[in-house]
This record gives sequence, structure tokens and C-alpha cells, in this order.
Amino acid sequence: MSGHVAVLGAGSWGTAFAKILADAGRDVTVWARRAPVAEAMRVHRRNPEYLPELLLPDRVSATGDPVEAITGAELVVLAVPSQTLRGNLAEWVPHLHPDATLVSLMKGIELGTTKRMSEVIVETAGVTGDRVVVVSGPNLAPEIAAEQPAATVVAGTDPGRATLVQTSIRTPYFRPYTNDDVIGCELGGAVKNVIALAYGIATAMGFGDNTRAMLMTRGLAETARLGVALGADPITFAGLAGMGDLVASCSSPLARNRTFGEHLGRGETLEQAQAATRQTAEGVKSCLAIRDLARAHGVEMPITEQIERICHEGMDPRLAVDTLMSRTAKPESYE
Amino acid sequence: MSGHVAVLGAGSWGTAFAKILADAGRDVTVWARRAPVAEAMRVHRRNPEYLPELLLPDRVSATGDPVEAITGAELVVLAVPSQTLRGNLAEWVPHLHPDATLVSLMKGIELGTTKRMSEVIVETAGVTGDRVVVVSGPNLAPEIAAEQPAATVVAGTDPGRATLVQTSIRTPYFRPYTNDDVIGCELGGAVKNVIALAYGIATAMGFGDNTRAMLMTRGLAETARLGVALGADPITFAGLAGMGDLVASCSSPLARNRTFGEHLGRGETLEQAQAATRQTAEGVKSCLAIRDLARAHGVEMPITEQIERICHEGMDPRLAVDTLMSRTAKPESYE
Repeated sequence: MSGHVAVLGAGSWGTAFAKILADAGRDVTVWARRAPVAEAMRVHRRNPEYLPELLLPDRVSATGDPVEAITGAELVVLAVPSQTLRGNLAEWVPHLHPDATLVSLMKGIELGTTKRMSEVIVETAGVTGDRVVVVSGPNLAPEIAAEQPAATVVAGTDPGRATLVQTSIRTPYFRPYTNDDVIGCELGGAVKNVIALAYGIATAMGFGDNTRAMLMTRGLAETARLGVALGADPITFAGLAGMGDLVASCSSPLARNRTFGEHLGRGETLEQAQAATRQTAEGVKSCLAIRDLARAHGVEMPITEQIERICHEGMDPRLAVDTLMSRTAKPESYE
Repeated sequence: MSGHVAVLGAGSWGTAFAKILADAGRDVTVWARRAPVAEAMRVHRRNPEYLPELLLPDRVSATGDPVEAITGAELVVLAVPSQTLRGNLAEWVPHLHPDATLVSLMKGIELGTTKRMSEVIVETAGVTGDRVVVVSGPNLAPEIAAEQPAATVVAGTDPGRATLVQTSIRTPYFRPYTNDDVIGCELGGAVKNVIALAYGIATAMGFGDNTRAMLMTRGLAETARLGVALGADPITFAGLAGMGDLVASCSSPLARNRTFGEHLGRGETLEQAQAATRQTAEGVKSCLAIRDLARAHGVEMPITEQIERICHEGMDPRLAVDTLMSRTAKPESYE
């Protein structure tokens, strides 16, 4: 192993993460799917497509060849779109160093299989779970690029690998905390996209801070219920990868899922919202997989259910609010 | 007992809470400290000092005489400033019905004694703890007055009394959840005022959503650490009286502690901030008591410590940020 770090994917988070690694003293090679992007990053030290204002540190190199990035890398950071992970990784597996640590930055649930990203990695790479480390937290990439102080969670079942990742990304502006609850961290990141959609819908409908705080809190409670059913520690959801990530994604007017939700809350159809934002927010896809996962485990997720209906069954958001508020009064609990 | 509800205190939350009770079908008598306010509420159905836009329901009456409000009341709702509770309640105790349920809306810690409000009630009224019910959650009064959907936690150790309060405040726009963790709910409400100050300071200093989400999350984590030391259930802090209340108080540009913090974050002294806002935010007082409580129990509360230094020792907020970010890297945990 050469000891360098490969970052596979040059989206906004992959690009900002490469900066963090370099600022922490690691040599980084970023793989960009499109060769001209890799070229621009290498030659001009900027990613023309994401965070173009960010001047990349000298320790960051870039390539259009994934094998070049992966070969000899001690840490392999996976930062591709969730639904493309399985296909991409299958091609990269033969080139992984036998002891490389696989780091997931992805926040999604695979459609069809309802697997978490670390599960897809374990299956596809044929590695044991302790080889995988998940990084998740309130980490809006543009703010990281501007070196605004931020914290994150480094989750892994092998303390040595988690600590290796922690020390590889610790900088004066970035504070990583270790945690052994991989399931909880991944679910927190995936379900927050759905709750942020709900937050955006509520915002566009004119609801105030009480209502939106309730949505976030009850959204996190249903995330925790699912988490507990899958073996997560409920306390994880009160942490940076749960509450922290959720709050940042809901608060930022620039966050994608919230913005997408605002379009839906103004009465636009899914197609109109997609046209206006030129994308499909991750939560729109994930809500289907998360709902399926919840049903398979007998877990009630009323907010996720309503978002799925709004996104995929054309339900009127106003009806969803009435349904949520008229549920039976009950104790505040996670079980 | 006549079965009516006494609301003692006609501030914004007391006034909005009277509306909730009336809308849930209860007859309410509000005590206002100043007779002209009581008169205006009774005659004109409006509180001229707080939420003047709110037309009070017919079931709400008002008086300047606390004995008139308390006598025969099944529920006695305490909504006076935290630091005045002991003195006020001592005068009212002889008039309480022997089986009245005492409901606390107050979010503070008593200076000097470091007691929670329910502890002050138990001591002063000479009642057992099961007679006290705490209501706490993301409940900004102006939004309640506008009937924006909101939820809250009704915490008590006697399930019968908690359920009585729950059914007495359930309306189509207000959703109460029961919980038996009185300590956790009270601490969540008290410490959130301190964290909201920190949030306001960070906002005025130009920090973005990552930093502020980190502050909220780590602030809630230190609240939970203190809570666990005092016997609370850590899960309570992930709920409406913990995260929910914290998020609403930080998000709303109108919330008092956040606004006060913004003045401090712009470099104003405590005196300048007090002059500009014409008040002292609750968190400014509580941070002293909470810090003392934490030290007495050997609990680390780094954010509260920094806020105490900024408010009462003239520390520069920029130095506080540096101190918080340079703490040793560690696992994300509550103990």
C-alpha cells in the first residue's frame, strides 16, 4: 500500500472531503467520472462542476481512471450516487488492496434490495463488515469548502479503522467523533432526506417553527424506531449523524431535499418539481425503500408514509397534515 | 373542587396556554399580576401586553386576585418567571385544593439552590412529586395563538394526573404526548435557553448551518449528560421537550434567547444587549445555575461553560469558538 487515499466520486461532498483529507495531511487521488473534470482538478486545482470557488490543496490529485486512484490506496472513499454504488464497486473490487478500509459517504437505501450502503459494500466487495467505515453528519459541502467549523461521526465496528479515518480527517475546522453504530448512522443519513422533504413541504405551506420542530422531532423518532428494529442504538439518533444532519439539512435553504419539498408544498407535481430543480431529490427515491423496510419490520413511520403518498401517489399535502395531527394521543416513546 | 383550571401568570405562554385549555373544553381563570391586565382580559377578551392579537375564548376568565383563581381549581398551572416561583407559590399554598394537580410551564433553574421548577414546587407546596406535571415542548406562544399545529410533552410520575393534563389540552392544533421523565423534560427546557444563546452568538458571527447544527447537537449531548447524572432517561432529550424545543427556540428569529445571543455575537456587552432587548434572557441567568449543577455532579458541559464566560466574565465569543473546536478528538457518547 502506498498509503494514499482514493476518493471515488467528484460531486460536491467527494470534492470537499478530498480537501479535508489533504488539509489533515493525507495525499489524495480523486476519481472523477468525466475525464475533463479530472483534468481541470489536476491542472487548475478546481472542480468546474461542484464548488468551483474551492481551490484544491496541493495534496489533491485527480484522475479519470478509477484503477489509478484505487491501486495501493489505504483508504478508499466511496462518494458516488447511492443507486450506482453496486454497479461501480463491482468493477473496482479487483483493484482494491486486500487490507484497504472502505469509507462510505453515501446517504441512501438501495431500491429493490432495501440495503444500506455498507451492506451493499460488504456484499459487492466480498469483505467483512469491520472493513467498512461510514462518515455522516451535518456536513453541507459548501460550508466545509469555506472552512466553517463542522463536526461529523466516523462509524465503524473496528476501532482501529475508525480511529485511522478519524485522524485522517481531523483538521482545525473539522471535528470527527467515533461511534460503533454503523446501522444508526446510515439510517440517520438516509431518513433525514425524507424528513427534509417534509420540512420543505411544511415550509412552503406556511407552517411555523413549532410545526417544523415537531416534524423534525417526530421524524427522528420514527427513524429511531426503525433503527432499533434493525439493531441500532437509539442514542445515535440524538447525535451528529441523526439530529445534527437532520437539523442542518432542514435549516439550510440551499439543501436539496428541503428545496424539492418546497416545490411540492406549493402544489407542484413530482414532475414539475423535478423540472424546476433539474434533479430528483434523494428522499424521493429513498422514501419508497424506507417505507418498504419499515413495513417489513412492522415499524410505524407515519411521516415517511405520508411523504411516499405525496411523492408517488399524488396525495395532497394538506390532507397529509390533517392525517398526521389527528393520530391518537399516546405516550412519547420509541417502541 | 369546581373542576376549573387556574392559570397563574399572564405572560405570553400563560395566555396562549389558557386558550389551549379553553379550546379543549376546560373553564379557565387566569391570574394576572396587574389588575388592569386582568380587567382587559375579562372585559375585552384580549391581553394588552402579550399576544394582543389573540381573541380569548369565552371559557377564559381573568382576575387580579390569585386566591379567586386558585380556589377550587382541579389544575393549577404555574406560569410565572422562574426566579419568582418560590416567593409567589408560598403565598398561594394555603389556598390550593388538597388534591389539585400542579402544572409547571416554567423553563429555568433556581439560582442559588440549582433546583428544577418541580423541585421548588414540591418543597414550597409541601406536596409529593406525583402531584406535579410538567408541560414542555416546541411551543412558541405566538404560533400557538395562531393555531399552527404543535406538539408537546406532558411529564408526570402519576399516569392518572399526566393523562388528565393531556386530555385537558388536546385540541385539533395541539398534540400532547405523555412521558414519565420529569427530570429530563425540565432539564431539556432549561438548558435549551443556554444553547439558544450560543446559537444566536454563532449566527451573528456568521457561522453557517453545519456549525449551528453541531452546536445544537453537542449542546443537547451535554444536556443529556447532565440529565443522566441527575436520573433522567437519555432518550427524553431526543424528544419534543429536548430536541424539539431546542430546534424551535434556535430556528425562530423571534425567540428571546437566540435574539439576545445575536446581540452578544455582534460584540455587545451584556449590559448593551440587555438595554437593546429591554430584558435579560432566561439563558443568561440559567447558565450560572446549570454550570454549578454540572460541576456539582462532575459533568462536562463545555458549551454552557463558554456561554457563562461570555455572559458573566466578558469573554470574547471568538475565543470560545476556538476553545470548543480544539477539544480533544473523542468518541461520540453521552457518558
